[in-house]
Amino acid sequence: MIDAYQISSQALVNAALERLFVAPAPELARLYEAMRYSVMNGGKRVRPLLAYAACEALGSAPEQANGAACAVELIHAYSLVHDDLPAMDDDDLRRGLPTTHKAFDEACAILAGDGLQSLAFSALLDPQLNTLDAETRLRMVTALAQAAGPAGMVGGQAIDLGSVGLKLDQAALENMHRHKTGALIEASVRLGALASGNATADNLQALHVYARAVGLAFQVQDDILDVESDTATLGKRQGADIARDKPTYPALMGLEHAKSYALELRDQALNALRHFDAAAEPLRELARYIVDRRH
Amino acid sequence: MIDAYQISSQALVNAALERLFVAPAPELARLYEAMRYSVMNGGKRVRPLLAYAACEALGSAPEQANGAACAVELIHAYSLVHDDLPAMDDDDLRRGLPTTHKAFDEACAILAGDGLQSLAFSALLDPQLNTLDAETRLRMVTALAQAAGPAGMVGGQAIDLGSVGLKLDQAALENMHRHKTGALIEASVRLGALASGNATADNLQALHVYARAVGLAFQVQDDILDVESDTATLGKRQGADIARDKPTYPALMGLEHAKSYALELRDQALNALRHFDAAAEPLRELARYIVDRRH
Repeated sequence: MIDAYQISSQALVNAALERLFVAPAPELARLYEAMRYSVMNGGKRVRPLLAYAACEALGSAPEQANGAACAVELIHAYSLVHDDLPAMDDDDLRRGLPTTHKAFDEACAILAGDGLQSLAFSALLDPQLNTLDAETRLRMVTALAQAAGPAGMVGGQAIDLGSVGLKLDQAALENMHRHKTGALIEASVRLGALASGNATADNLQALHVYARAVGLAFQVQDDILDVESDTATLGKRQGADIARDKPTYPALMGLEHAKSYALELRDQALNALRHFDAAAEPLRELARYIVDRRH
Repeated sequence: MIDAYQISSQALVNAALERLFVAPAPELARLYEAMRYSVMNGGKRVRPLLAYAACEALGSAPEQANGAACAVELIHAYSLVHDDLPAMDDDDLRRGLPTTHKAFDEACAILAGDGLQSLAFSALLDPQLNTLDAETRLRMVTALAQAAGPAGMVGGQAIDLGSVGLKLDQAALENMHRHKTGALIEASVRLGALASGNATADNLQALHVYARAVGLAFQVQDDILDVESDTATLGKRQGADIARDKPTYPALMGLEHAKSYALELRDQALNALRHFDAAAEPLRELARYIVDRRH
């Protein structure tokens, strides 16, 4: 079931995203091509899926979350482009393809990333992708800016860079991930919920607990896959985190304990949805998928 | 008069900006310090001044444009940080001080720029800086995202990078500048006008004509200063554009013709304001200042 849901949701967000990369003038063609290359690359679209599933969990059609889904994926894509730069992680390969600065050049990759961040805010408010009332759209912009910014994802990148070679304890590692990946995953769920038009303080709070657990589970599973999977399956260099001496859950708590921790987080996420009806099934399936995935 | 206006407006925006760089956690201190370093550097604040003056021209107190003023300056500051990177213009000096990647490091400068872009959207909507109605705030977000993004400023950077060593004609040069600096200058005026709460289709259109002319005049004068001024006055390397074989107005049309063109653009800007009353005097003074300045 999750496969069919993933495929249809990926198709939905990909169609909405594709429209955004039409260069408005020929002299902008290369920049738009670099942005398109960075986004339309067969990504799993985990964040858009979470936005759609949260919107459906509150009883609305997933299409209402198209603006939210595009926005969170664009922020995610820009962060990968900049993360791969020589001055950052210096990666040549992403999802089995040359990274943006390899396929184009470094200056173009910096600008493509910068442009994707602006485009996320434009897409979030694009009248073809978001027809909600003004107050709700404003709450969405505020949540996106907060999650993407220095107190969120960018802050997590900075903490991560400052942690290489350090001995972090579990609390410090979780704090880093809460910023680096957790903030945007939480925003994906929140934006999807707001897009439903049916968000209340109570269901937003339950979804926040769900998203925090799922965000952390996603990272723990990423660390496990970095140890267990091979480069071909992963689409990026296996063991890359270990080679860089980055702190990981398996390194910190042992591989088996990391696996049981991922399952515990999945159960925390499912428990947060206990008062939700069958419309939350995609959200539940996503929590299961995130700890079962092999890449 | 323009000096006193500049000093009081700079104090206004600097006080509002300063509040934004308080790190929410000790592990984020270095990132916030790098962002602060990139912004609180004695910049001229031309864009905030335009926002305040546009707000006043439509009869409102400049404080109402605090969110707009901070937002456009944060976008401008981030673009300079990324523009100075080794893969871009590779500049060591900015306003007489080491550029952000020299004072910190390259990864930190990339992240500081990324964070400043998100922070611009947060600041624009910060309830302490912007108390306008929801529809107006949304129009402001949309205008900022459009101006900053790939069809605006980032697009201009891409066109600029693609133009080094090429023989551009005046139309191509202006197209590059309309994107690279013009879009954000136009947005500064537009956001300030919207912040007044008194924007109409007619006065927005007149202000748009003003901003287009001022934006171009600003660039022509920058090119003239690159030829005429010395490094100490300019705070960056004199003749840098020529050394890089970048297209400039003096190179294209000769120095004297470039100077008369700057004056012509100033007069176009002033003419656009002919139906505005005395409240538009700061806006008029800014148009005069932009072609008279020595750095």
